[in-house]
Amino acid sequence: MTDCPLCACADEAVLWRDGFCRVIWVDDARYPGFCRVILNAHVREMTDLPAEQRRRLMEVVFAVEAAVREVTRPDKINLASLGNVVPHVHWHVIPRWVDDVNFPEPIWAPAQRAAMPRVVETDLKARIQALLQIPE
Amino acid sequence: MTDCPLCACADEAVLWRDGFCRVIWVDDARYPGFCRVILNAHVREMTDLPAEQRRRLMEVVFAVEAAVREVTRPDKINLASLGNVVPHVHWHVIPRWVDDVNFPEPIWAPAQRAAMPRVVETDLKARIQALLQIPE
Repeated sequence: MTDCPLCACADEAVLWRDGFCRVIWVDDARYPGFCRVILNAHVREMTDLPAEQRRRLMEVVFAVEAAVREVTRPDKINLASLGNVVPHVHWHVIPRWVDDVNFPEPIWAPAQRAAMPRVVETDLKARIQALLQIPE
Repeated sequence: MTDCPLCACADEAVLWRDGFCRVIWVDDARYPGFCRVILNAHVREMTDLPAEQRRRLMEVVFAVEAAVREVTRPDKINLASLGNVVPHVHWHVIPRWVDDVNFPEPIWAPAQRAAMPRVVETDLKARIQALLQIPE
């Protein structure tokens, strides 16, 4: 799809990729550690994929969840595949903290409080990348 | 957990269940077809489950997605596991339409428009239940 931003994949900070999908760093200071898993092919819904490909994509999502938890020690992980704006399968892996701007609401809800200046280690991205253990 | 509403599982409209998880009907007129898949055990994160149990839970989630798509023909499916309020693994399977109250924003975002009186067939719940094909 020439007009799909996830097909164009410009300006992505890729932590890992293979021929099937990629893991990118989402640079959002409100949720340090936020990553996205993006299917390379332009497919609309998870159930448009064969079962084996669904399993593989979720295996990558959970590998990302594990690395993000290990490095950022969040109070909760949020996982979501929405795609209303960009109908190309992708998963949000979002670390949440009880004092983050939206907690306990989803990150798309109105803010609950002023954004807290969270401590963000400078090598967070590199540490998550180093800890990513994606099965063969 | 005695104080967890998903452990208490009171007042749930159960479409399917086994010893591992259950599928419930979410009675939300804005998103007719909205279902939830709830792990029976009180577990906080997907990566707190062994890989085989993660695979099984997602297999059920995708079976629900398939039935909801077949019956409601939505413009998009949204999947989410958040659990900020109730940290007990559960998945939202939400059919979306371009003219629904929040589209294209997530359902937790501020409304984009007045709720449309969507046509809701009286047997929607029974049809989704009948079409649920959850692998052994």
